[in-house]
Amino acid sequence: MIRRRFVSLAIAAAPLVAASTAWAQADPLPSWNESASKRAILDFIARTTAEGGGDVVPVAERIAVFDNDGTLWTEQPIYFQFAFAIDRVKALAPQHPEWKTLDPFKSVLAGDMAGLAATGEKGMLEIVAATHSGMTVEAFTKTVEDWLATARHPRFHRPYTELVFQPMLELMTFLRTNQFKTFIVSGGGIEFMRPWTEKVYGIPPEQVVGSSGVVKYELRDGKPVLIKEPKVEFIDDGPGKPVGINRFIGRRPVFAFGNSDGDRQMLEYTAGGTGLRFMGIVHHTDAAREYAYDRQSHIGKLDKAWDEAVQRKWTVVDMKADWKVIYPFERK
Amino acid sequence: MIRRRFVSLAIAAAPLVAASTAWAQADPLPSWNESASKRAILDFIARTTAEGGGDVVPVAERIAVFDNDGTLWTEQPIYFQFAFAIDRVKALAPQHPEWKTLDPFKSVLAGDMAGLAATGEKGMLEIVAATHSGMTVEAFTKTVEDWLATARHPRFHRPYTELVFQPMLELMTFLRTNQFKTFIVSGGGIEFMRPWTEKVYGIPPEQVVGSSGVVKYELRDGKPVLIKEPKVEFIDDGPGKPVGINRFIGRRPVFAFGNSDGDRQMLEYTAGGTGLRFMGIVHHTDAAREYAYDRQSHIGKLDKAWDEAVQRKWTVVDMKADWKVIYPFERK
Repeated sequence: MIRRRFVSLAIAAAPLVAASTAWAQADPLPSWNESASKRAILDFIARTTAEGGGDVVPVAERIAVFDNDGTLWTEQPIYFQFAFAIDRVKALAPQHPEWKTLDPFKSVLAGDMAGLAATGEKGMLEIVAATHSGMTVEAFTKTVEDWLATARHPRFHRPYTELVFQPMLELMTFLRTNQFKTFIVSGGGIEFMRPWTEKVYGIPPEQVVGSSGVVKYELRDGKPVLIKEPKVEFIDDGPGKPVGINRFIGRRPVFAFGNSDGDRQMLEYTAGGTGLRFMGIVHHTDAAREYAYDRQSHIGKLDKAWDEAVQRKWTVVDMKADWKVIYPFERK
Repeated sequence: MIRRRFVSLAIAAAPLVAASTAWAQADPLPSWNESASKRAILDFIARTTAEGGGDVVPVAERIAVFDNDGTLWTEQPIYFQFAFAIDRVKALAPQHPEWKTLDPFKSVLAGDMAGLAATGEKGMLEIVAATHSGMTVEAFTKTVEDWLATARHPRFHRPYTELVFQPMLELMTFLRTNQFKTFIVSGGGIEFMRPWTEKVYGIPPEQVVGSSGVVKYELRDGKPVLIKEPKVEFIDDGPGKPVGINRFIGRRPVFAFGNSDGDRQMLEYTAGGTGLRFMGIVHHTDAAREYAYDRQSHIGKLDKAWDEAVQRKWTVVDMKADWKVIYPFERK
């Protein structure tokens, strides 16, 4: 069944070239070990795209959604966007002498992570507001691009955009080959992601759903610009994810992948439609190659969604057992 | 130049069939009279897609945005969505005996349009809130579909979705043939449009930007649903249009079409980017075949945007002079 599907794909994808046997038999998910997870994914895609089959999903409804932090790239030791915000506080500090004595900025500048943690969510939001507003959308995009070009992950000493999961890249490519439209649905900031998702994931800006701040239209010196304001507009997390999906996509997905309790409602919402559905969770079990964390983690806590996944037989990927490689740079 | 472009298009679009001379010379905008408007459109598309040309726009950046009411379909004598809301008030009245004595509902039920007008914007918002909330997104979609199947326009006695502009359908198709991605950016409700835009315009739900109400995620009897609440979330009109474009699309468009002052900022924002841009306005000049209105109209007022268009040499379509047919049903 699956092999037949690959052959027809090869023909569809290369109408002017004879499909070679080698290509037709190629594994679309080479970084995935043979496992229940891999079989569940391949089976879902084969059944929902088998023309004339009872489970086929019309092309227009082939909507696949992916959480970003912890699902498509690493989220430890801190969310990468928060690492960006901390670096921005340091870069902007000379223009804000008052930050030297004012938390949460004081703690950031002193490298006092315990002090920063003590400022709680309020402190985090202040840091995000101070570093993500007061400029045009274009200027913000430039700061993200500049940061990604120079910042390095503290453990892997590589650009953050290299810390994406090779098996998930293969999965998204395979879905797109099968005419699924892939979307990111992330608690992260929409404008932090859009500058690089196309290059890194093959997902264009208009297929990125995320949290956002208020933006205001203005004419500055006769030039129309959008200014980022220090005010939260929408939090695309938990119950906000189905809301964000409805707002941006307007269809219920048939395929969803997450990794934490923040993805639970997105997975439930996906499961709640009719017909064949796929719900997947990345379980971080590999302290040697990446990180191992779940129920007790402050970042990417996986507790209730895990219980629900087990109970409802959703696919839980065991990173250590199921993935041959984690990052693209590990490949020979 | 333009003829060469058609030939290369024909080859690109039909790789397995030899391009016939007849096809290669076919007019992609047959419902447009030869005019400055038509020439400006064809010239823009030819130049932005001519490989190796100085004005070529990369495929990923070929974003074209269209207002809906008055740009893609008729908006007189009242916005079609408001006709829907009025019909919904009538349908829901038996469940709301208090409406008989309470404006704006009382005026609607009595057919007293002057009384309704006297309730102003506040009255209109109350009617929209009462008819667009308190149900799931799916249930609302169903009421829209049911209404469209039975409601008829008071002058043309046809389903509202037949009152779309044939020349604009041709334009959107031609843009898509040239790998532009077409989006609606409308002051109308996003959930009022999405049920039919794919069938009528070829624009899928995820490419519809519009005004929206707050939506809440809930489990009802264990089933995940999204409930529409009686609260405005976002008004995608005037300065809200560039904001909506930024939020949903994340790129500045290169091509924009509107018809009223509510589209002015969207046109300005489009014009404000670098490289070749197209800004167009539909001027309703045809009282015989459609409607004639501009500076003094309560609906679709075209005043400041018209002045700006003339001054900045944007394309102003003279509906009466430039369009051979208005609606698809006029074609022989």
